[in-house]
Amino acid sequence: MQTFEVKAFGTESAESALKQINIKRRTATPKDVEIDILFCGVCHSDLHTAKNDWGGTVYPAVPGHEIVGRVTNVGSEVTKFKVGDMAAVGCIVDSCRTCESCKKDLEQYCLPGFTGTYNGKDKHLGGRTYGGYSEKVVVDEHFVLKVPENLDAAATAPLLCAGITTWSPLKHWNVGPGSKVAVVGLGGLGHMAIKLAKGLGAEVTLFSRSPEKEKDAKELGADGVVISTDSAQMKAVSGQFDLIIDTVPYVHDVNEYVPTLGINGTIVLVGYLGPLDPMLNSVPLIMGRKSVAGSVIGGIAETQEMLDFCGENNIVSEIEIIKIQDINEAYERMLKSDVRYRFVIDMTSLKN
Amino acid sequence: MQTFEVKAFGTESAESALKQINIKRRTATPKDVEIDILFCGVCHSDLHTAKNDWGGTVYPAVPGHEIVGRVTNVGSEVTKFKVGDMAAVGCIVDSCRTCESCKKDLEQYCLPGFTGTYNGKDKHLGGRTYGGYSEKVVVDEHFVLKVPENLDAAATAPLLCAGITTWSPLKHWNVGPGSKVAVVGLGGLGHMAIKLAKGLGAEVTLFSRSPEKEKDAKELGADGVVISTDSAQMKAVSGQFDLIIDTVPYVHDVNEYVPTLGINGTIVLVGYLGPLDPMLNSVPLIMGRKSVAGSVIGGIAETQEMLDFCGENNIVSEIEIIKIQDINEAYERMLKSDVRYRFVIDMTSLKN
Repeated sequence: MQTFEVKAFGTESAESALKQINIKRRTATPKDVEIDILFCGVCHSDLHTAKNDWGGTVYPAVPGHEIVGRVTNVGSEVTKFKVGDMAAVGCIVDSCRTCESCKKDLEQYCLPGFTGTYNGKDKHLGGRTYGGYSEKVVVDEHFVLKVPENLDAAATAPLLCAGITTWSPLKHWNVGPGSKVAVVGLGGLGHMAIKLAKGLGAEVTLFSRSPEKEKDAKELGADGVVISTDSAQMKAVSGQFDLIIDTVPYVHDVNEYVPTLGINGTIVLVGYLGPLDPMLNSVPLIMGRKSVAGSVIGGIAETQEMLDFCGENNIVSEIEIIKIQDINEAYERMLKSDVRYRFVIDMTSLKN
Repeated sequence: MQTFEVKAFGTESAESALKQINIKRRTATPKDVEIDILFCGVCHSDLHTAKNDWGGTVYPAVPGHEIVGRVTNVGSEVTKFKVGDMAAVGCIVDSCRTCESCKKDLEQYCLPGFTGTYNGKDKHLGGRTYGGYSEKVVVDEHFVLKVPENLDAAATAPLLCAGITTWSPLKHWNVGPGSKVAVVGLGGLGHMAIKLAKGLGAEVTLFSRSPEKEKDAKELGADGVVISTDSAQMKAVSGQFDLIIDTVPYVHDVNEYVPTLGINGTIVLVGYLGPLDPMLNSVPLIMGRKSVAGSVIGGIAETQEMLDFCGENNIVSEIEIIKIQDINEAYERMLKSDVRYRFVIDMTSLKN
């Protein structure tokens, strides 16, 4: 298979800083779209993969799955894109396309497993896929999204992961006008959950441990803020919510939020991967037909639906633009939650 | 308020055996139906309440909430029943009737709390309600069910708790032809879950730790039996089920069953009240948009729907009929799971 070399930022080990390296991209096959990457959002998963926090990272690792750029080449069979179009790539660059999930446009739940945009098994070149911290990416057009022209390209990038990860449960659990939605945690995911739920017409409440987040949350569209460490405030919202989107990425007590769900309510975990400690109590679930669920990113068709919705409603992420050379410092700041609310890399910095 | 005295079987303390006592029933008010109790099923909740296992039992306690009998008197405003009708009473004898849940026929989730058929706060006489281990019961007609005449009255009694507790989640999670349902545990609830899911057209699998239950399960209608301690058998049903009804009444590892759910699948707990030990892991929930939910009994309209469905499909419980004088021994046997699958008290024995 023909390839070409591009510059990228990656890491050689869990302990190394990211630095400039060269990687190979396949020359566009008939179904492929070649994209010159303009912006790439910085997700917590990038950091976890770089540091091998989840195990399984193969080095060199090139993170980045919130990609926005311009099409520079298309294969002979590509119909959705032409050279010069704005295009985006999220967390998925391939899937089996034949399983029950893929047939239902649920590539995120592809039964044999989807191919992640980075550290996924590269079906074309072998080895692992390389993400968006690079000059270019080559992706089958099925997994490439159209970007509404009216949106700021840099601020659109985080929609590809933080956006779709919160959009998918909002849609799956039928949020719309009249819905009461709460969001736990105000970070990259949480701030998108507020904007998207509000955009869908829901009444939105933020649960936060930090009173200083109230002003921001309201500017983002939240109707209310509940300080989750204040038992009186928690009691005041007892039985209120149809859906809670819990974006907290570390272990925390899910039981605290269950009483604030109404009958038939669901709390959906999108941030924390691991055992629920302290133990989840079944009693309030049984006594109110409540559910604890999980959800991961979203399918390709759903991602396009979300991007189109954002275009129509002028919804983008709140971002801080950085140069690729500042990525290691950005990771340090993310670990201290020192970002409002998403770093986005201006990828032209890689060309310099 | 006018009352009359009836014989009952009850207990004076957590340590006492049940014995014959006298209790008072209110004389039927305009909305009330007075029922001569013919049969009363024996639920695990009866035993837990008698022994104060959950705390909160007020003595004397008279259990029983799977009641079938014949109407002997009706109040002046009663329209649904006349003297001589067969009638049934389940777990709920009153609710606020004005909250959001009650307005949606979800009396089981009445926000101020429904009045349990026993050990509930009696709004008419003060003190606690007395259940079906008695000669008669007097209940507002809204909470009295019609009994299909073609069903065996004794075998119908357990439908009022074991039946509706499994019917309600089957209906809420839209089980029908094409659904794949699994049931964890083959007891009073489990055997009804198999019959009702099968009646609704689902393909039904029993999870059990006991290979000797396979024959019974298939006779009850199960299409398959999976021995949950056999990892090869568990792996063979990976990703199979739309809904799992978990009837196990003691602490157990819910994580074992989650991988057998398909994408968007739900495991609903109807038996075990308490912390999920070992801790529930969020990863398989997130990676398959799966849910862990709870459900308690069902609403009055839904209970009638279930009874009518059972009438049309000739579904009743598998029972062993006992005399009220044998109730203490029956409790001992229940603790050893030595019952197929529900004890039902022939309440004429109380008259002797």
